Amino acid sequence: MKKSSLISNVENVFNYNIDAADPCVMVIFGGTGDLTHRKLMPALYNLQHEKRLPKHFAVVAVGRRNKDHETYRYEVYDSIKNYARFKLHEHTWSELRRRIYYQKFDFNNDIGYIRLNTFLQKLDEQYRTRGNRIYYLAVAPEYFAVIVEKLYLHGMARNSGSWQRLVIEKPFGRDLDSARQLNEKITAVFDESNIYRIDHYLGKEMLQNIMVIRFANMLFEPVWNNRFIDNIQILSCEKVGVGSRGGYYEQAGALRDMLQNHMLQLLTLTAIEPPAGLDTKSIRDEKVKVLRSLEQFTPELVEQNVVRGQYGPGIVDNEEVPGYRQEERVSPTSNTETFIALKAHIDNLRWAGVPFYIRTGKRMPVKTTEIIIQFKPLPKILYAREYGHLQPNILIIKIQPREGVFFQFNAKKPGTECNIVPVQMDYCQNCREGVNSPAAYERLLFDVMRGESTLFARWDEVEYAWKFVDNIAAAWQTRQPGFPNYPAGSWGPREAAALLAGDNRNRLYKGDIRT
Amino acid sequence: MKKSSLISNVENVFNYNIDAADPCVMVIFGGTGDLTHRKLMPALYNLQHEKRLPKHFAVVAVGRRNKDHETYRYEVYDSIKNYARFKLHEHTWSELRRRIYYQKFDFNNDIGYIRLNTFLQKLDEQYRTRGNRIYYLAVAPEYFAVIVEKLYLHGMARNSGSWQRLVIEKPFGRDLDSARQLNEKITAVFDESNIYRIDHYLGKEMLQNIMVIRFANMLFEPVWNNRFIDNIQILSCEKVGVGSRGGYYEQAGALRDMLQNHMLQLLTLTAIEPPAGLDTKSIRDEKVKVLRSLEQFTPELVEQNVVRGQYGPGIVDNEEVPGYRQEERVSPTSNTETFIALKAHIDNLRWAGVPFYIRTGKRMPVKTTEIIIQFKPLPKILYAREYGHLQPNILIIKIQPREGVFFQFNAKKPGTECNIVPVQMDYCQNCREGVNSPAAYERLLFDVMRGESTLFARWDEVEYAWKFVDNIAAAWQTRQPGFPNYPAGSWGPREAAALLAGDNRNRLYKGDIRT
Repeated sequence: MKKSSLISNVENVFNYNIDAADPCVMVIFGGTGDLTHRKLMPALYNLQHEKRLPKHFAVVAVGRRNKDHETYRYEVYDSIKNYARFKLHEHTWSELRRRIYYQKFDFNNDIGYIRLNTFLQKLDEQYRTRGNRIYYLAVAPEYFAVIVEKLYLHGMARNSGSWQRLVIEKPFGRDLDSARQLNEKITAVFDESNIYRIDHYLGKEMLQNIMVIRFANMLFEPVWNNRFIDNIQILSCEKVGVGSRGGYYEQAGALRDMLQNHMLQLLTLTAIEPPAGLDTKSIRDEKVKVLRSLEQFTPELVEQNVVRGQYGPGIVDNEEVPGYRQEERVSPTSNTETFIALKAHIDNLRWAGVPFYIRTGKRMPVKTTEIIIQFKPLPKILYAREYGHLQPNILIIKIQPREGVFFQFNAKKPGTECNIVPVQMDYCQNCREGVNSPAAYERLLFDVMRGESTLFARWDEVEYAWKFVDNIAAAWQTRQPGFPNYPAGSWGPREAAALLAGDNRNRLYKGDIRT
Repeated sequence: MKKSSLISNVENVFNYNIDAADPCVMVIFGGTGDLTHRKLMPALYNLQHEKRLPKHFAVVAVGRRNKDHETYRYEVYDSIKNYARFKLHEHTWSELRRRIYYQKFDFNNDIGYIRLNTFLQKLDEQYRTRGNRIYYLAVAPEYFAVIVEKLYLHGMARNSGSWQRLVIEKPFGRDLDSARQLNEKITAVFDESNIYRIDHYLGKEMLQNIMVIRFANMLFEPVWNNRFIDNIQILSCEKVGVGSRGGYYEQAGALRDMLQNHMLQLLTLTAIEPPAGLDTKSIRDEKVKVLRSLEQFTPELVEQNVVRGQYGPGIVDNEEVPGYRQEERVSPTSNTETFIALKAHIDNLRWAGVPFYIRTGKRMPVKTTEIIIQFKPLPKILYAREYGHLQPNILIIKIQPREGVFFQFNAKKPGTECNIVPVQMDYCQNCREGVNSPAAYERLLFDVMRGESTLFARWDEVEYAWKFVDNIAAAWQTRQPGFPNYPAGSWGPREAAALLAGDNRNRLYKGDIRT
């Protein structure tokens, strides 16, 4: 995904080089938060280590707390030590350290923006960053609109002769209506081409591999359709519970936290039609086509094809863990779902009749994200007639924590008699020595710096995803869920297993076919 | 290959059980030879170890040397210790030992047959073997006809109420004419259904897997044709030279020793159309169809598409080794080929336009037999347009010494940039702990005992193979080869590499893509 067709005029003025990051100052709103310390600063360090940061670059962390630059840098030092993928090296750190600044700031207060603007202009001179800005909104969603508005009011967005880009974290709204309202506000200030809606799953190594695997191999594309594929299972399991994020999660649930963004992104990349090119627009157009082709859920379909769950107390890794309702900042009568399983269909010629089973949940027995492509059963001829039930071919694209590709096929069982058994072959993307996959945020920040937006969600992607999700949310409104309905450390509510079992399909993703 | 449709009446009379070996006495002509000691006796021991030998069974080794049963058994004990795949266990050995006999014998002398017959009848009583016989001809080919004739004269073949099976080693003739003459002689005595022409390659674990891989997997059969496959390379390399077999090899050469049988068997199993069933007749019929569809070589085609070679002195495994002409019992001006490479075509709808590159030779740098299926190059769209030349998909069926399946496909190179690299996945059939693939002869002897002939060559297979080979031999007659033309330890004559290079194809089988 190298080329971007959406190079704006501003970028052309500056002789924009698609493969290198532009000079810029990055402003992180929410600079003292978890995301900044665990992801953004370590990502910047990794980029520095790999000499990918622009030569002319500075970063300003903005937060409500009072601290000086040095104190803040000291905190960042600790974060990098803990979270960067490269071991902290003092020389590399000193290169980055002197480009980090902290600014105390109240998001609602105009004075703060004036001061910030003055400070940024000073940095422009010092670092020769030409007025280019990345505004990274790592704050609670209620601040998105106000920050964007103030940036506009204080002349900090849309400046000619330079670029200003907005990076916005999830959740992008909490339903279609609120997302539209938010989008109207930010697109009034920033061009769509300068808005980077983060879905960090898109930055993961193996997500970019999905399209490569399909379109750079003669063997896969011809069988990637309903003639050869029986069903596709998209799975994202976490072992952890809601942890300290109860306050946020109570509002989101698995539907908004996982399905609306990450799971639907996995689905679109798996099901995408071959794009006309690898440019940003071509790929996004095809992704939107998939979302538009999703069978829309009626209340009856939600009843039949969607299962929600919430974990009760249970055992994970031999340790007793509390139920969701016993977690911090969670209501003891909460009806927020921590699990969702559903059967979706894509109504196009390629996928008609192929169910997509999506499943995501917290407090599962394993941590894994993967796409399981199950091929059709063999017709009952030759070996399938002689030896009865043979396992179908299975291709698994492993997203995390293992990255790679797994293939199960049938072979003769070694020995004098002819029996046929499933055998496995595996390609591991992150096993080879010296391979240290870049973190998702590292790739995404680099893409923002160089103006490459393929790995970000365009507005219509977000819009169609909300349409799909809103139908589910609406149907759920009409019924009490009866939570909790699965113990922590289990595979979710029984009804979820029944979704596949009812279709006479195995629960392949119980780890039973992987070595 | 479990079912045989060719169950003869005799077998039915005896309530023949397809999965168990019948009571019988096995007579090995050439009982003091290399094959008997290295392959046949160890195979019988392995079968005994696995409790697959018939309960009612004895073996009589026949040879020209004078020795008693005990002396012979002592020699066999040594062979088993050295060559059986199971460690020699005294109890198992004692079970087999007392069923082994030796008989001195001159193949031309009628008295010998009379004595042998009397002895076999005695064993029938002692072992309750019902008159069933396996006559295994492990002798020089000039004795095949005379032994068969004498067996007939002395009433030792074609007895009603019992079965007599003939096992015949290669070479089956040295051209089409001599093969036909031999075949007429043996079919005058034995029914085609009782003739087992050994091609021990067919007993190899992975040869049986070729059909399983194709027909027991939904992913392979749809792409197994000229729409998706660019070329197929069938390769059998040996490191060894001719060793002590110079006398035989001078008459055979690589053409008759390897191509006429083993290599063409690999070709037919790879290219076979789906048979109507897994019974012996259906499979053999399809194999013959492949051989009949082979493009017949004119002298011009031989000139263009066939390369012969003979090794000169060279270095293998860091040791100096002599050239072929310096080997024992080889003429110092010999023009026998120790290497052959050719490009064949199968003129049917499935394979039209797909070259089959066959290559076999002695004194190569590695020992390996494998079938390399190279898929079509990608059209220059999407990634193939963006990143230039991408490697084609490669599937390798590894026959020996490594057994398994290897697949190379393209994936994203791990890292921030999108580069595409070939990556590998591998299934090893003989790596798993506890897996000890049965030797080819073990499986084949067991099949003879139970009357299962799928893994043996039917007459018309042999016939069409000779037709193909004779065209090459005839063209070679008209030109001196200019031997030696490759040093031991090299990949053969330059012209062989040019066969592929001329077609703009890589020499993939130089071990460069395998880990």
